[in-house]
Amino acid sequence: MDTARASRTGDPEVIFGQGKQPAQVVSILQRLTAEHPDRAVLATRCADDALRACTEEFGGRAQVDPLARTVVVGPWPTAFGRVAVVCAGTSDLPVARECATTVRAHGAETELVADVGVAGLHRLLARLEQIRAADAVVAVAGMEGALPSVLGGLVAAPLVAVPTSVGYGLSMDGTAALLAMLNSCAPGVTVVNVDNGYGAGVAAARIARTIGRLRAGEGAR
Amino acid sequence: MDTARASRTGDPEVIFGQGKQPAQVVSILQRLTAEHPDRAVLATRCADDALRACTEEFGGRAQVDPLARTVVVGPWPTAFGRVAVVCAGTSDLPVARECATTVRAHGAETELVADVGVAGLHRLLARLEQIRAADAVVAVAGMEGALPSVLGGLVAAPLVAVPTSVGYGLSMDGTAALLAMLNSCAPGVTVVNVDNGYGAGVAAARIARTIGRLRAGEGAR
Amino acid sequence: MDTARASRTGDPEVIFGQGKQPAQVVSILQRLTAEHPDRAVLATRCADDALRACTEEFGGRAQVDPLARTVVVGPWPTAFGRVAVVCAGTSDLPVARECATTVRAHGAETELVADVGVAGLHRLLARLEQIRAADAVVAVAGMEGALPSVLGGLVAAPLVAVPTSVGYGLSMDGTAALLAMLNSCAPGVTVVNVDNGYGAGVAAARIARTIGRLRAGEGAR
Amino acid sequence: MDTARASRTGDPEVIFGQGKQPAQVVSILQRLTAEHPDRAVLATRCADDALRACTEEFGGRAQVDPLARTVVVGPWPTAFGRVAVVCAGTSDLPVARECATTVRAHGAETELVADVGVAGLHRLLARLEQIRAADAVVAVAGMEGALPSVLGGLVAAPLVAVPTSVGYGLSMDGTAALLAMLNSCAPGVTVVNVDNGYGAGVAAARIARTIGRLRAGEGAR
Amino acid sequence: MDTARASRTGDPEVIFGQGKQPAQVVSILQRLTAEHPDRAVLATRCADDALRACTEEFGGRAQVDPLARTVVVGPWPTAFGRVAVVCAGTSDLPVARECATTVRAHGAETELVADVGVAGLHRLLARLEQIRAADAVVAVAGMEGALPSVLGGLVAAPLVAVPTSVGYGLSMDGTAALLAMLNSCAPGVTVVNVDNGYGAGVAAARIARTIGRLRAGEGAR
Amino acid sequence: MDTARASRTGDPEVIFGQGKQPAQVVSILQRLTAEHPDRAVLATRCADDALRACTEEFGGRAQVDPLARTVVVGPWPTAFGRVAVVCAGTSDLPVARECATTVRAHGAETELVADVGVAGLHRLLARLEQIRAADAVVAVAGMEGALPSVLGGLVAAPLVAVPTSVGYGLSMDGTAALLAMLNSCAPGVTVVNVDNGYGAGVAAARIARTIGRLRAGEGAR
Amino acid sequence: MDTARASRTGDPEVIFGQGKQPAQVVSILQRLTAEHPDRAVLATRCADDALRACTEEFGGRAQVDPLARTVVVGPWPTAFGRVAVVCAGTSDLPVARECATTVRAHGAETELVADVGVAGLHRLLARLEQIRAADAVVAVAGMEGALPSVLGGLVAAPLVAVPTSVGYGLSMDGTAALLAMLNSCAPGVTVVNVDNGYGAGVAAARIARTIGRLRAGEGAR
Amino acid sequence: MDTARASRTGDPEVIFGQGKQPAQVVSILQRLTAEHPDRAVLATRCADDALRACTEEFGGRAQVDPLARTVVVGPWPTAFGRVAVVCAGTSDLPVARECATTVRAHGAETELVADVGVAGLHRLLARLEQIRAADAVVAVAGMEGALPSVLGGLVAAPLVAVPTSVGYGLSMDGTAALLAMLNSCAPGVTVVNVDNGYGAGVAAARIARTIGRLRAGEGAR
Repeated sequence: MDTARASRTGDPEVIFGQGKQPAQVVSILQRLTAEHPDRAVLATRCADDALRACTEEFGGRAQVDPLARTVVVGPWPTAFGRVAVVCAGTSDLPVARECATTVRAHGAETELVADVGVAGLHRLLARLEQIRAADAVVAVAGMEGALPSVLGGLVAAPLVAVPTSVGYGLSMDGTAALLAMLNSCAPGVTVVNVDNGYGAGVAAARIARTIGRLRAGEGAR
Repeated sequence: MDTARASRTGDPEVIFGQGKQPAQVVSILQRLTAEHPDRAVLATRCADDALRACTEEFGGRAQVDPLARTVVVGPWPTAFGRVAVVCAGTSDLPVARECATTVRAHGAETELVADVGVAGLHRLLARLEQIRAADAVVAVAGMEGALPSVLGGLVAAPLVAVPTSVGYGLSMDGTAALLAMLNSCAPGVTVVNVDNGYGAGVAAARIARTIGRLRAGEGAR
Repeated sequence: MDTARASRTGDPEVIFGQGKQPAQVVSILQRLTAEHPDRAVLATRCADDALRACTEEFGGRAQVDPLARTVVVGPWPTAFGRVAVVCAGTSDLPVARECATTVRAHGAETELVADVGVAGLHRLLARLEQIRAADAVVAVAGMEGALPSVLGGLVAAPLVAVPTSVGYGLSMDGTAALLAMLNSCAPGVTVVNVDNGYGAGVAAARIARTIGRLRAGEGAR
Repeated sequence: MDTARASRTGDPEVIFGQGKQPAQVVSILQRLTAEHPDRAVLATRCADDALRACTEEFGGRAQVDPLARTVVVGPWPTAFGRVAVVCAGTSDLPVARECATTVRAHGAETELVADVGVAGLHRLLARLEQIRAADAVVAVAGMEGALPSVLGGLVAAPLVAVPTSVGYGLSMDGTAALLAMLNSCAPGVTVVNVDNGYGAGVAAARIARTIGRLRAGEGAR
Repeated sequence: MDTARASRTGDPEVIFGQGKQPAQVVSILQRLTAEHPDRAVLATRCADDALRACTEEFGGRAQVDPLARTVVVGPWPTAFGRVAVVCAGTSDLPVARECATTVRAHGAETELVADVGVAGLHRLLARLEQIRAADAVVAVAGMEGALPSVLGGLVAAPLVAVPTSVGYGLSMDGTAALLAMLNSCAPGVTVVNVDNGYGAGVAAARIARTIGRLRAGEGAR
Repeated sequence: MDTARASRTGDPEVIFGQGKQPAQVVSILQRLTAEHPDRAVLATRCADDALRACTEEFGGRAQVDPLARTVVVGPWPTAFGRVAVVCAGTSDLPVARECATTVRAHGAETELVADVGVAGLHRLLARLEQIRAADAVVAVAGMEGALPSVLGGLVAAPLVAVPTSVGYGLSMDGTAALLAMLNSCAPGVTVVNVDNGYGAGVAAARIARTIGRLRAGEGAR
Repeated sequence: MDTARASRTGDPEVIFGQGKQPAQVVSILQRLTAEHPDRAVLATRCADDALRACTEEFGGRAQVDPLARTVVVGPWPTAFGRVAVVCAGTSDLPVARECATTVRAHGAETELVADVGVAGLHRLLARLEQIRAADAVVAVAGMEGALPSVLGGLVAAPLVAVPTSVGYGLSMDGTAALLAMLNSCAPGVTVVNVDNGYGAGVAAARIARTIGRLRAGEGAR
Repeated sequence: MDTARASRTGDPEVIFGQGKQPAQVVSILQRLTAEHPDRAVLATRCADDALRACTEEFGGRAQVDPLARTVVVGPWPTAFGRVAVVCAGTSDLPVARECATTVRAHGAETELVADVGVAGLHRLLARLEQIRAADAVVAVAGMEGALPSVLGGLVAAPLVAVPTSVGYGLSMDGTAALLAMLNSCAPGVTVVNVDNGYGAGVAAARIARTIGRLRAGEGAR
């Protein structure tokens, strides 16, 4: 593992938990927090037993989110800038929360705006000012993936779209939503892989924290 | 050809012009109008030279639309009910107009509402009352195909979605838009094949004209 | 949840049960029936344990269909118009019955015509008059999805096609049937997503109940 | 080239004309007819200029079909057995006629039954006795490819299905029809590649001529 | 169920066991054998528990093949003609044996030639005379699906190819083998769906039994 | 057209030239420059004849790039921040230059770093400091699309990846490169549609100009 | 089984364990080692219970690798030449080790170079001399599959690429990596099927052992 | 351009002619031959006009192959080792000859074995000894791509498979052949992209020339 990555990029260490045994996740977390007691370490895509093992091992020092399947150990970094994570329904929440936790661990504030699907436009419009106030926006959507196109016409901040595998029939595990986002008629929308809340969070946090640091009078790292 | 179709279904005779020679299109139109001088005959997907041949042959008796690639010969049927055909941009107009002409030839009024893409929501909302007044709605869209999902949350009438092959990159000739429409989070949206303005027009006209006839005190056929 | 939806569109409240815990399904049903004691609430795609939980909680007040995986609580709405739901084999019955229940909950009569596949044409022709008498037709089919094309040449009413994931080998979970329906040579066939009996039911009910209300001398809502 | 093939399999020599220059097609035909003056030689998928070159070179000795893009030089073989080649519309005729000519050149009688699509069932039923009288049936169809499923429930003879690339939108150059045929609910339907009238003709002729020879009191070769 | 099918087509009654409960399979078998005590009834794709239920219920009257997942109850029909079922490896045996049993139940002799893959050509050539003696050939293959192309150049009888889902990596559940068979350079190869040993058996038996009946001096049915 | 868009989002007016006649492109450019004489108007994906028409009409006032197929009329906006546009080979240059021009028209500086493919790593490493100095990076690549993954491990700035349709064989018009970018092992890479240099330019410019304005002591718009 | 294969090709006997029962794997291994006590026999893709059965049966005579799912019984062949097996992360190790064991069993030395992904280029460059010293190189990678392209520009030896099914979202079980490798901009890269470490090992060992034998003064077999 | 590549890898300079103007191809060839008068320079995928321009410019110094679309200028390198390039039909010849020329330009002898498709096995077996004598084999095939599987069971040398886009119907521009080759049941077959005769030639030449140099008593480079 490359423990110098944070100093090179400004990002924390991250453990990709998928396919890893609980003992592996715990031991890597232990080693990384021992090396970097001053900053947070993030684990994503942890299985149920790995989440339980972390709760047992780290107790109050770990923030475990069973919906997002994330674990964070150690103190949060100072936050600069703000990212709005927007999603349509409760089914998209796991991905949206993985994204929000990733944003916070990468040094930006985050705000989750849920239940604002395009088929209920009035709810989306009611939250618009809040979304417009962010330095970067992440739009999370499954099914037909229309949310980023509608948002893209309403906000001027950088917008990252995350397709989710929520759907049935010919949604093809999120491919329909991904295609919609790649073909968005709103210019400037960029896209990450299906269910990749982590990747969108890294991208949005990098944007927001640089803007936030400059606004706060700190130099961009 | 089955010239008794109209009496069986209430639909006019239709010629699928794709792949047909100009002389073929003209001669079939001639025969059908001779058999049915009292009603309109519709030709769709006519090539440029077929359109010109029809103009030369039928003169003022033919209504030729080079954008929609349609020809109508003979008197329009009495119209019952109304269909709103809604589309996003100028690129979708050929399909939207093929649809509108098909609706009219199948015995319903039609209204074309163009330039109301989801990335410019205020334009769509400005036309909403007009759309809501229709007995059936056809939503035509390429790119990410989000229009039916947004409309589906705003109108209660039956809604038919038409994906178009408008786009570039991984739009896959309209497949991205088709998938979005099949996966629409708005319930009750039904879909036709890519660029099939004709099929959507037939479906919408059947709905609207039955409703219109009943409202006008005529029995449904 | 948007509990005002019924008054806006004429549709009942619906709970998409897939991925929801039994307790969640029960509690949402309780809240919605408390808010709307005068009308039916529909839950679709409920898992086995959710179906059992509903039976225990609501007893005789709930209509639970384990094949269709639907639950309806509260009084049926007055029905206007009639929808024929047609399918080929016993394997398609779950989708066909989800559709029929949806139609009834959305305010139209329904009639299920099963075991009329295209490879046994005489059975289909024997039921034709019954199907032709409906205000809207839903054709449910897996495998090669040919039923809507054959029906489309025989009936004049609006026809919605539902592909099912019934099949094996290269049926690709219903995609083969979906493609067949999109490419139907019968004009005016519209299509919904694979196994989406609910969506087809909503679309067909909206058509039939408007026609039925007008025929009954009530204004279309 | 393997000029001994006929004696080994009972099939004639065949030239695949696609991608070949007119002079190449003519010279191979000349060589094969010189080697086998007593039997027909077949060329398929000939381009327009190759067809013209064959007409000029062989005159009355060649049977040139510009629609099927086939050329036959030399005497037809004695025919045993009969193949019905059935198709829906005029657009499928080129493939159906390539198939019929292939059948005849491989030593069986053939009969072309056109304009019997599944959306006009009465026309198909009117020709049923004629089709049932054949020793093998080839069903040619584009669009949704439903014809073999309907025929498969009506005839007992071996049935080969040929999907054609006739269609638009998401017909995917005949793939939709191919998938429908592979997933046919009628048992015993076998399928060849898209537009492969030649392959279906070879398969059907081999079946029919063996049956015909036996019926005629000649031994199967 | 259509119990008159046998008299119409010469085929036995068949139960598609996939997705059916053991009790359902047993009860349909009971009813059909009661109606037709003089002929065999075939059930395919039976699950393990359905196979056990049939063994318990029918005892010595049933022939149960756990590898092929087939059950046959009642006396075999008199066999006419012979079908060679050829496959490459032990993994293809379930499909090959489903095919062979289907052939026998449809009234033709069958012969299983296994372990003759194209990468071990000498084994295939050693069995060639046996294969050439058949009235129809079925070639069963997974992986790259090359067996029908090699066989197609060696035998003159009608040849039906069955792709199997045997493979790994990008075999795509038999699609790679299916595509290879559709694109075979050997003319006259026809294809059925992936793992559809039943369909290939029906097609091959219809060919072989007609030829066999004629050779035996009986008229073709 | 929505001429107030610039004031709402900080972006210029843009004309999508694909499918538009030369006269249409010229007349829209004229109208927009008349309405906004103080800022640049951008046209993308212009055909050869549209580019020539712009040169004739606007002369020295228009900057026409035949490789990128872009036209810019009017004064460039003041630039804040800097975007590095990186690509592998000369074949990717049209997309890279469309991107660079888009960046400049949207108010950021741009720098084109070409001929740095991953199979010639030393050339890429030689330009690394220059790339690292940018506020946002766009990586343009066809073929296997590996450039963003390699760059993603070397730079800390926000990185937008653009797949191009450069390739042959099974590159599937840029889909192979798109998939590689979506699956990049480097975190934080976001992706736009194939050949969508314009979309990447909009996204990168929005990021860079906000950072640049703040660094320059101007407030973010 | 063809036990003469080794003498014909220089390769050992190999058992494809996937889908085989533990007892089958053990008994085939026993028979082959009895026939060939002087050389190693390799079993690949063994399930957990098959691995345990081999350990119990063969004890110290078997080399069982639970990660690679391989079993080797009998003495290794003398090794000639050397193959470097290179992979990015721990997730690719099972495929990489199956490859390395295959190489050794086919008579070449092997060296596993792990944890050298393209997003951490310095680690790859640090191992470059070691990789360059090999007679053949196998590059194993999932996700975006970029490793062979980067390696291809750095080494001159024959290079075989193995895509793995490691990934998530639209990695499509290794298809994204496979496509990247087929489209590599580095010339001379050849590719095997997804997760086919065995196939790559066979190919690389054949190359390296021939080179090694010649270098050692032995004739190529 | 990186003119030091040859000394680093032993490969010549190569120009990818696709998409390049005739003048560009000529001028790059001129520069490279001026820099390296002692060795051959290879241009692939040249358009007709580029081939003519090379003939005019270089005359007898250039070897122009209009079928393979290759140009070689300068003296051939000394050849070590031998590669057999095997293909089925005349349609595969352009790819096979591009491969053979590439092999020769990369320093190995080459031998073209054409017209040996798997449906005419006797022709293939007649050439077997010649193929077995080579140090590496390239198998070129379109349609069902079965040739490498058959060859793989017959030869022990390293075998590279090249799918070609030769075919029709659902050959999907060579994808069917590519899939067959990736799924070959013969172990050790490696594959390149569709129509990539150049890539296969580079891979095979690297293998053969190293073996040839060692056999000739020269050290491997």
